[in-house]
Amino acid sequence: MLVLGIDPGLATTGFGLIEDDSQGRFTLVSYGIIETSANTDISNRLVSLYDQVSNIILLHKPGQVAVEKLFFQKNVKTAMMVGQARGVVLLALAQHELLPAEYTPNEIKQAVCGYGSAGKQQVQLMVQALLKMTDMPKPDDAADALAVAICHLSYAHYNDAINQATG
Amino acid sequence: MLVLGIDPGLATTGFGLIEDDSQGRFTLVSYGIIETSANTDISNRLVSLYDQVSNIILLHKPGQVAVEKLFFQKNVKTAMMVGQARGVVLLALAQHELLPAEYTPNEIKQAVCGYGSAGKQQVQLMVQALLKMTDMPKPDDAADALAVAICHLSYAHYNDAINQATG
Repeated sequence: MLVLGIDPGLATTGFGLIEDDSQGRFTLVSYGIIETSANTDISNRLVSLYDQVSNIILLHKPGQVAVEKLFFQKNVKTAMMVGQARGVVLLALAQHELLPAEYTPNEIKQAVCGYGSAGKQQVQLMVQALLKMTDMPKPDDAADALAVAICHLSYAHYNDAINQATG
Repeated sequence: MLVLGIDPGLATTGFGLIEDDSQGRFTLVSYGIIETSANTDISNRLVSLYDQVSNIILLHKPGQVAVEKLFFQKNVKTAMMVGQARGVVLLALAQHELLPAEYTPNEIKQAVCGYGSAGKQQVQLMVQALLKMTDMPKPDDAADALAVAICHLSYAHYNDAINQATG
């Protein structure tokens, strides 16, 4: 299964695509960031983000998608900006019949590192190890997107194992 | 000129379409609300909102659009939800090359009622009078959308008058 992890933001949206096989081994397919320019008005930034997310979906045809659960920022202005970006990302996904699974930051750290209070660098080192990457995944938003994709695949394998044991 | 006023929200988005003539007289063309069901997941609510806004644009082909300036809600959760809805509304508009003019609540009250601290009911009564409506515009979100459209046309006329006087 090919899973798209995505970390939406207005200036920078991280994405990561990971394939797994029946043994639960991960293959890194692609990762990176979508950027929109602060010199452009909000409307055209949203169009650019929407178009780029749509292109990634059309190019890679992911089977499932995972995003971090809505994080209620302390700064209300930031929350509004992230909300607008998240809205067009969810729209682009839903137009391709992709309804994202959502995970809390703690669930993601737990799945990737084995404990929910892991630091950012620990998460990135585990992502690097699990995906056999030569370097640490960069920038942070791309690493976060890979982490949520790994989290989703881990939960899927866990649920499969439970179902096999009890089925 | 046909102006679309719009008041975005996830559960309810108000819209109002007003045409003016060269004498600055207003004609109410259409108004109402777009609703999405709380029983539906967020992704499909955003698709529904996007489709309905797109349909209004295709049906009426407004020349200009006005929205209320980002209002920084006290409640961060609400801000995120409104942000997601606003994102897809701005996207649908921009895809039809409509970049909205934005007005603060005070600018809207000033333009409609003549003073920036007017109450909600005063605004609605003035909207009713200016558009020669039999009843008060309802519900609130539709009335707010009509008010921002009137505000936009008032500023346009004001600027035209300035330009003629100084041109």
